Amino acid sequence: MSGNTIGKLFTVTSFGESHGPALGCIVDGCPPGMALSEDDIQIDLDRRKPGTSRHTTQRREADQVRILSGVFEGKTTGTPIGLLIENTDQRSKDYSKIAESFRPGHADYSYQHKYGFRDYRGGGRSSARETAMRVAAGAIAKKYLKASADIEIRGFLSQLGPIKIEKFEWSVVETNPFFCPDVDKVAEMEQYMDALRKEGESIGARIEVIASNVPPGLGEPIFDRLDAELAYALMSINAVKGVEIGDGFACIDTKGTAFRDEITPEGFLSNHAGGVLGGISTGQNIRASIALKPTSSLRLSGRSINVRGEPIDVVTQGRHDPCVGIRATPIAEAMTALVLMDHLLRHRAQNFEVDSGLPTLR
Amino acid sequence: MSGNTIGKLFTVTSFGESHGPALGCIVDGCPPGMALSEDDIQIDLDRRKPGTSRHTTQRREADQVRILSGVFEGKTTGTPIGLLIENTDQRSKDYSKIAESFRPGHADYSYQHKYGFRDYRGGGRSSARETAMRVAAGAIAKKYLKASADIEIRGFLSQLGPIKIEKFEWSVVETNPFFCPDVDKVAEMEQYMDALRKEGESIGARIEVIASNVPPGLGEPIFDRLDAELAYALMSINAVKGVEIGDGFACIDTKGTAFRDEITPEGFLSNHAGGVLGGISTGQNIRASIALKPTSSLRLSGRSINVRGEPIDVVTQGRHDPCVGIRATPIAEAMTALVLMDHLLRHRAQNFEVDSGLPTLR
Amino acid sequence: MSGNTIGKLFTVTSFGESHGPALGCIVDGCPPGMALSEDDIQIDLDRRKPGTSRHTTQRREADQVRILSGVFEGKTTGTPIGLLIENTDQRSKDYSKIAESFRPGHADYSYQHKYGFRDYRGGGRSSARETAMRVAAGAIAKKYLKASADIEIRGFLSQLGPIKIEKFEWSVVETNPFFCPDVDKVAEMEQYMDALRKEGESIGARIEVIASNVPPGLGEPIFDRLDAELAYALMSINAVKGVEIGDGFACIDTKGTAFRDEITPEGFLSNHAGGVLGGISTGQNIRASIALKPTSSLRLSGRSINVRGEPIDVVTQGRHDPCVGIRATPIAEAMTALVLMDHLLRHRAQNFEVDSGLPTLR
Amino acid sequence: MSGNTIGKLFTVTSFGESHGPALGCIVDGCPPGMALSEDDIQIDLDRRKPGTSRHTTQRREADQVRILSGVFEGKTTGTPIGLLIENTDQRSKDYSKIAESFRPGHADYSYQHKYGFRDYRGGGRSSARETAMRVAAGAIAKKYLKASADIEIRGFLSQLGPIKIEKFEWSVVETNPFFCPDVDKVAEMEQYMDALRKEGESIGARIEVIASNVPPGLGEPIFDRLDAELAYALMSINAVKGVEIGDGFACIDTKGTAFRDEITPEGFLSNHAGGVLGGISTGQNIRASIALKPTSSLRLSGRSINVRGEPIDVVTQGRHDPCVGIRATPIAEAMTALVLMDHLLRHRAQNFEVDSGLPTLR
Repeated sequence: MSGNTIGKLFTVTSFGESHGPALGCIVDGCPPGMALSEDDIQIDLDRRKPGTSRHTTQRREADQVRILSGVFEGKTTGTPIGLLIENTDQRSKDYSKIAESFRPGHADYSYQHKYGFRDYRGGGRSSARETAMRVAAGAIAKKYLKASADIEIRGFLSQLGPIKIEKFEWSVVETNPFFCPDVDKVAEMEQYMDALRKEGESIGARIEVIASNVPPGLGEPIFDRLDAELAYALMSINAVKGVEIGDGFACIDTKGTAFRDEITPEGFLSNHAGGVLGGISTGQNIRASIALKPTSSLRLSGRSINVRGEPIDVVTQGRHDPCVGIRATPIAEAMTALVLMDHLLRHRAQNFEVDSGLPTLR
Repeated sequence: MSGNTIGKLFTVTSFGESHGPALGCIVDGCPPGMALSEDDIQIDLDRRKPGTSRHTTQRREADQVRILSGVFEGKTTGTPIGLLIENTDQRSKDYSKIAESFRPGHADYSYQHKYGFRDYRGGGRSSARETAMRVAAGAIAKKYLKASADIEIRGFLSQLGPIKIEKFEWSVVETNPFFCPDVDKVAEMEQYMDALRKEGESIGARIEVIASNVPPGLGEPIFDRLDAELAYALMSINAVKGVEIGDGFACIDTKGTAFRDEITPEGFLSNHAGGVLGGISTGQNIRASIALKPTSSLRLSGRSINVRGEPIDVVTQGRHDPCVGIRATPIAEAMTALVLMDHLLRHRAQNFEVDSGLPTLR
Repeated sequence: MSGNTIGKLFTVTSFGESHGPALGCIVDGCPPGMALSEDDIQIDLDRRKPGTSRHTTQRREADQVRILSGVFEGKTTGTPIGLLIENTDQRSKDYSKIAESFRPGHADYSYQHKYGFRDYRGGGRSSARETAMRVAAGAIAKKYLKASADIEIRGFLSQLGPIKIEKFEWSVVETNPFFCPDVDKVAEMEQYMDALRKEGESIGARIEVIASNVPPGLGEPIFDRLDAELAYALMSINAVKGVEIGDGFACIDTKGTAFRDEITPEGFLSNHAGGVLGGISTGQNIRASIALKPTSSLRLSGRSINVRGEPIDVVTQGRHDPCVGIRATPIAEAMTALVLMDHLLRHRAQNFEVDSGLPTLR
Repeated sequence: MSGNTIGKLFTVTSFGESHGPALGCIVDGCPPGMALSEDDIQIDLDRRKPGTSRHTTQRREADQVRILSGVFEGKTTGTPIGLLIENTDQRSKDYSKIAESFRPGHADYSYQHKYGFRDYRGGGRSSARETAMRVAAGAIAKKYLKASADIEIRGFLSQLGPIKIEKFEWSVVETNPFFCPDVDKVAEMEQYMDALRKEGESIGARIEVIASNVPPGLGEPIFDRLDAELAYALMSINAVKGVEIGDGFACIDTKGTAFRDEITPEGFLSNHAGGVLGGISTGQNIRASIALKPTSSLRLSGRSINVRGEPIDVVTQGRHDPCVGIRATPIAEAMTALVLMDHLLRHRAQNFEVDSGLPTLR
């Protein structure tokens, strides 16, 4: 398979450049009979949309999605769902300077090497603009997972640069532009971002996603483990440099008795493993964290070369997110949903007749 | 595809349980004409082999590999390569107790839920014994990558429990049982492991893999990015809980000017990104790190339930690695090799005629 | 993979219903740097378009294709190409009667069984309307095959009902509405079709496709043989009931000495095999034939059942092709092109460095 | 995916050459809990085995299969099933002459072009010897299809050279070396084959496979239709040159009212379509036919070239089947089983919750 399709049974194939006429994707493998409208998708698109606070890029995109197929009389038909979003605010002029230069930390250089040629407008295909389609497709998966298996997928920002959350309330997450669950940190983040913007700098962030009510049994070892597929899906998001399942890197300096999650008839006593054992869901919450790097689109000059190999200084004008992590929560949720959706279907296919007789512990 | 195949063009399909008669895999897509013998594979198998120091499981396996097809007159033919390793030291009696119980932190519970039934001997399919075939297949990929593109893949242990390396010499890595590149830490690690074994405990570790001379252009955005595929492949290794590319999670609290790798006509000035931009290799070293959890096979009793859902105490006898990370370096190298091999072929397929005219910077 | 994607490296993923707002597809894996415009695609779409003669359905569709991504400054970028065709002449009212009934010989019954629910307007997804996207994607493959490897793919109608061609001239094929290469049979076919239409009947046809200048070596045994993949791609076209490679079924009563294609230094002495040996192209013309059944959309009443399982009589009004084979030539060419394109890329991936030193015989 | 894997959810990956040490395959995706022993597989292997009558090759192979994994305590575990058959009667000396020459009608020339190098012993990978693994894997699929869905798959020879069957009795099929269901034709076939062998010639054959009790709904349009996948799987068998579904090529000169299969509440009135409409099973018998070419291994001299491009005369000594169709019935059954198995699982995955409320008609 070429690189723009994700999934085996529930597949999403994506197209579109930052400054092309439109973005789109095809969602194939959605079971028939589920109620689906554009509103179901728009909710998550609006959560990701640029320009909703002063802390993100000021590009204005309606990100209005159209369903072009696969839904009839308000229900999915089981045939592929075509989704389309027109680009409306491209302003190609902002980007004309980068046609001949490679912005450091960007995909300009690697794309040019690979393809010998690139759509330089706004980063072309390498722009995070394509994540709109991930969110759109993910919204369909989220709806199905909830409707068919009561699975819920929610994310939040757990760290913004040096600021780590200390309190956690789901109800706070959607009330601030950071998806921050700690109400006491929001003002601090606002100030940090304002200072950062003045400085011309950017910063990284950490996002965590939690999937609850996942049935035990999802994941296809030895390669297509649930955690391996989550790592793939989450690492495929622009700017992600690390993925953790459960406690992640903290396991290195933890002893076995402290890390193993003991089990009682009433449930697990801890969840260091993040809801996955041997690559298969246990029934506990799936927990995954990602690290997003600071964006490299900066108005502070950086050294680079141009297409002729000559040294240049690069200053990135235009509209950019000083912290791409701020808008990444809906994207991380979407990628998690795509993986769980695919594995729910894969699990059903092979284990249609299985009844382990075991309790589902949380 | 079912879950026991990795790769799109260079595919490895694996089978075998810990205590079954044999393990095997099929390597499909290896280009024809490469010299290949069992010795080429055995070298890496011997590096992973159990029982070579007192710090690993005392199971004795010759891990002698046979090539059953795909090689003729000492050269690969382009047809699938069948590999087989017979299991010789199974001692099933050691494991009979776990037939009815779920060891905490192990895959027993999740396998039973998924399949309704499991081969409980030594963990069956969920045992790290299957990683022998990963190493065998990886050895073929490593040989081809070196022969065809001069790519070199090497790994090392960078942290064992609380002990982090401070010095780095490649020449040291193969001279100690830990794959530790810091000669001054080896004695400390030996003592730490001896104490741990007495205690009955286990511990985690961090492994890093570096691929050098990787040509720019490998990786297939937007989903099959090189870093995403590495994350998948590395997270699919038993006990891995986290994957980092380049600086990984350290990017969260780093500013954009510090993180972006500036470029000069003589080369990159840093490699925080770990050799990947926009999901495509840049020509710099690919750097990936993984965290391995402490094994859950402990002789210190832990609470769990049995197949009837009743509470039990579990003590794991038998032969186990107190730190699975110690033997993980060759496995991490192998998985990295499989990903690079697949992407080298995928890149050639689409970009046969591309000449970017750009210099290859390191 | 779900069922709406074809290809491994050059993949086409399709969506769209007969009476939905639009049809589309994503072509992923097209090498970068090829000149491509909407005109390149429109040529073949116009050859397939309905309503161009009195012998096909009178539905009027402009079938105007838009390229939404993957092309920049007139050249392919190596990123996915999004294609879109708006439906303009749906007339849903014509089809309202079939909501509750299953037309015999149509996919109504099997779709309802599979999905429990179907878009009944004009056959929904099962309509041959989707073949427009096959032709569009195929046009891109055809252009690349010609530009990169001088491969040419052309088809023709070799039999319409009882009328078989006896003469063959490529120059005649595009001069009549049947793609018939025998100038003497065109009038006979016109009369036959006029009579058939009056009668209210439909009829089958045979189409042959020839790919010339195919390099030796394409095809990936033992399963993904070139002939097997052609059979898959051609049988996936609506109404196709049989596929032959080379002499096809005539081989049954042929002896070995007559069938084997002898070789001389100047070339092969015959081409009974149709250009494929052992599943790999030989360099000779690839020859494949398909049989298309008579359409089941007839105004002559037929027995069936309705969604409640009750007996009914079905009469199909609306606009239909009395011989779907008439418009099938561009579709068969397109499917052949998709397979050859995919295999050209697959072959390059694995055999990058191969030089057999053998002559290319035709 | 590389070319030696078939299936999406129920996958078979195969390896092995005619004269290598062993053949094998990995069956991945078999649901857990099915009773399975080597005897279940051996039955079909013995039906395909060479040397069981004077009409097939005199190579003597026990074709004894070993299950190496995926079965525990007599039941499938849901993990991959490794199968192995050792080659015992290779006699490589018989084939040494063909190292430098290309037998006309064989894959020698195309393999050499593709890979630049080939295992010439007995045709290497291109030998029909690999079909043993198809039959072994197919036996597992057949067992599951019967156990889980009561699906039965049976084949027979319907034509041998000029001799067509006129009567049909299932009970006759397994009582003669041809799998011929017409008791009156067996003696005629025996005589025909004896004469052919004396002559040094070979001949083609037609095999038909019927799958009964297939539930409606299998098949994944628009590309992975059930008929398209059958065409792929059957065309991938050595020597096959044509595939028909239902009436196949006879549809060309049939009118619509005669071809459409009318439906009544009691069932379909005919089955011209072969049990597939719109690429989805209807519940009727699936009917597929294949044409197998006469083998090109003949002791009658044929013109060809050698590896240096020089003209030569080729005489094939060694042990060969004068009609490969004679042993092809179990292979065709196996390939049909693999496709149905894969599609049964795929269908379940997506349509887990569907209840169409429709009757299953036959």
